[in-house]
Amino acid sequence: MEVTPWEVKGEIDYSKLIKQFGTEAISEELLNEIRRIAGNLHILLKRRFFFSHRDLDKVIEDYKKGKGFFLYTGRGPSGKMHIGHIAPFLLTRWFQEKFGVNVYIQISDDEKFVQKRELSLEEVEVYANDNILDIIAIGFEPSKTFIFKNSEFIGKMYKKALMLGRKITFSSAKAVFGFTNETNISLIHYPALQAVPTFFEKRRCLIPCGIDQDPYWRLQRDHAEALGYYKASAIHSKFLPPLQGVKGKMSSSNPNSAIWLDDSEKAVRMKVMKYAFSGGQPTVEEHRKYGGKPEIDVSFNWLYYLFEEDDKRIKKIEESYRNGDLLTGELKEILIEKINSFLEKHKERKEEAKELVKEFMYEGKLARKMWED
Amino acid sequence: MEVTPWEVKGEIDYSKLIKQFGTEAISEELLNEIRRIAGNLHILLKRRFFFSHRDLDKVIEDYKKGKGFFLYTGRGPSGKMHIGHIAPFLLTRWFQEKFGVNVYIQISDDEKFVQKRELSLEEVEVYANDNILDIIAIGFEPSKTFIFKNSEFIGKMYKKALMLGRKITFSSAKAVFGFTNETNISLIHYPALQAVPTFFEKRRCLIPCGIDQDPYWRLQRDHAEALGYYKASAIHSKFLPPLQGVKGKMSSSNPNSAIWLDDSEKAVRMKVMKYAFSGGQPTVEEHRKYGGKPEIDVSFNWLYYLFEEDDKRIKKIEESYRNGDLLTGELKEILIEKINSFLEKHKERKEEAKELVKEFMYEGKLARKMWED
Repeated sequence: MEVTPWEVKGEIDYSKLIKQFGTEAISEELLNEIRRIAGNLHILLKRRFFFSHRDLDKVIEDYKKGKGFFLYTGRGPSGKMHIGHIAPFLLTRWFQEKFGVNVYIQISDDEKFVQKRELSLEEVEVYANDNILDIIAIGFEPSKTFIFKNSEFIGKMYKKALMLGRKITFSSAKAVFGFTNETNISLIHYPALQAVPTFFEKRRCLIPCGIDQDPYWRLQRDHAEALGYYKASAIHSKFLPPLQGVKGKMSSSNPNSAIWLDDSEKAVRMKVMKYAFSGGQPTVEEHRKYGGKPEIDVSFNWLYYLFEEDDKRIKKIEESYRNGDLLTGELKEILIEKINSFLEKHKERKEEAKELVKEFMYEGKLARKMWED
Repeated sequence: MEVTPWEVKGEIDYSKLIKQFGTEAISEELLNEIRRIAGNLHILLKRRFFFSHRDLDKVIEDYKKGKGFFLYTGRGPSGKMHIGHIAPFLLTRWFQEKFGVNVYIQISDDEKFVQKRELSLEEVEVYANDNILDIIAIGFEPSKTFIFKNSEFIGKMYKKALMLGRKITFSSAKAVFGFTNETNISLIHYPALQAVPTFFEKRRCLIPCGIDQDPYWRLQRDHAEALGYYKASAIHSKFLPPLQGVKGKMSSSNPNSAIWLDDSEKAVRMKVMKYAFSGGQPTVEEHRKYGGKPEIDVSFNWLYYLFEEDDKRIKKIEESYRNGDLLTGELKEILIEKINSFLEKHKERKEEAKELVKEFMYEGKLARKMWED
């Protein structure tokens, strides 16, 4: 397997990643602590889609002591967004709701422009603006959320990026990110930029993100305290499996590997029916006799991690699929209904989001403070 | 010898540098062409302190055709300014006067902060603000000159830096600047920033600068046309020799190697008398008999390149020093008088410059245009 911010390949062994990256598994105890404070647990936490962390325990400690914390997450706008992209945003919104804290959302248009040399600045901006609407549609609190494009907010970030950047040698960036001599100098510098929002407040910063983003926080953690800030805390997710099977990551280069946030009802039905890898048996007779394997069934995985919050219902689905009562087609129908109901609401909220862009980016309480500081 | 933007060591062989860097010597013909247009030649041109160029002939062609051009130069604010720093500014001002064109002056506070890890941001800003006053004191036309600090103007430069930066691999930056694996990632990215002002207008950009800055323009020239801009043109100076002898470059780490723009009359007299390397003979008797060697005499060099504009007078000084009529002490007196008269006026203009900072940086005609664009 290979996991870097720019590539995820092979079958991912998440326990191995925890060891390799030096992060910690999220303990039952820590989850219970969060449940005590929040009143419940978000589906992405209780089903362990977020499975690893750095200093999440310290963040919760700081919260309990009244010191508070803040949230930071982001999006690299190299294309439209799919279902797999929204997990960190859903969890971030949940933390914001339950803990009442500020959220900073970085749109790394600079990174995507320098990483993907086939994209023009204009193309990246079209994606960035569309992604921002999808993110707003998730439902953040406008007065406590600041969404910014790096290319626009650079004036307020540059000095802090240099403070960190001058401490990072090419050797160490190479070791952490797998840069080579052929990597371009703007991409080499980008890690300094991605770390800057962790310095936006003098409190702990909790970052919900895919585990592939962890290298950035490792680098930040090497230097943050020497610069007078806190080491970044993170909570890391798995990758939602692509329709084709429970390996790797959905890919923008294969549109049929994912459900896009703008897919039509018909497209969702077609893709799930046609592509969602099934853990069922080849014939109805065999399925009734031997049952299916939910652990390798993509539809079940999506329901389990993202769409079926009800513990009893997901348990029933699992059991009846395993014992052959529930057929693949029926399981897929459940997922299709869930996805389409989610997307219908999402599209409505995305329409409404157009009116909110200014508030999140420039004129809301937190946004104004950030631009004025 | 070693000549990079960050280090100049050894005895400089300027003809060899022309070959090594692939630039051109400034021909008699080209100088005559400039004289025809300007009415005269600046001392730094006629005495060949500026000795090398890239595409200066094309700049002059464009000017004659009415397409015009613009000027760009800059300063890395890592300390106070000395006599050796002002040559590019003097020539830039002369070109502005004679050709009536816009001037952009980059204060690379970002570069100096990331290059010199012992400096704090605050220290760099103190130097930057002081250097800006020295530069304004040179006498640029306020409505046609824009002075900017990179750390402040980055918002307007960043996208253009990325356009170039994503085309430059670490390999090629390494080859051009001598970067190593231990170079920090912000310094590695800096060359993309230094090239950006060459994209401020869609005309040829002429850059008066020390020959040590040429690597930046080489890199810019490799990619400018593909980005829809002109290849940078440059006119390169020698290094004004340090007081200790006609080798190397004045150094901030040795205050006695240079005359600083804020040196007192007394300090100037002391330094020239005590340190200026003499091409004269050990005793008056020997000097009268054998004469001095102006070519290795630092006082003569400074007069020749910078302070004695009158061709007849400098010729007389040279001859009478060579034949022993003029003694080292007398030669030094001539230089001291020239320097102190220059510094006296400079200090007055620097006082007045305080009132002009806003105009050059934010509110003048060109500055306003740049901030609004």
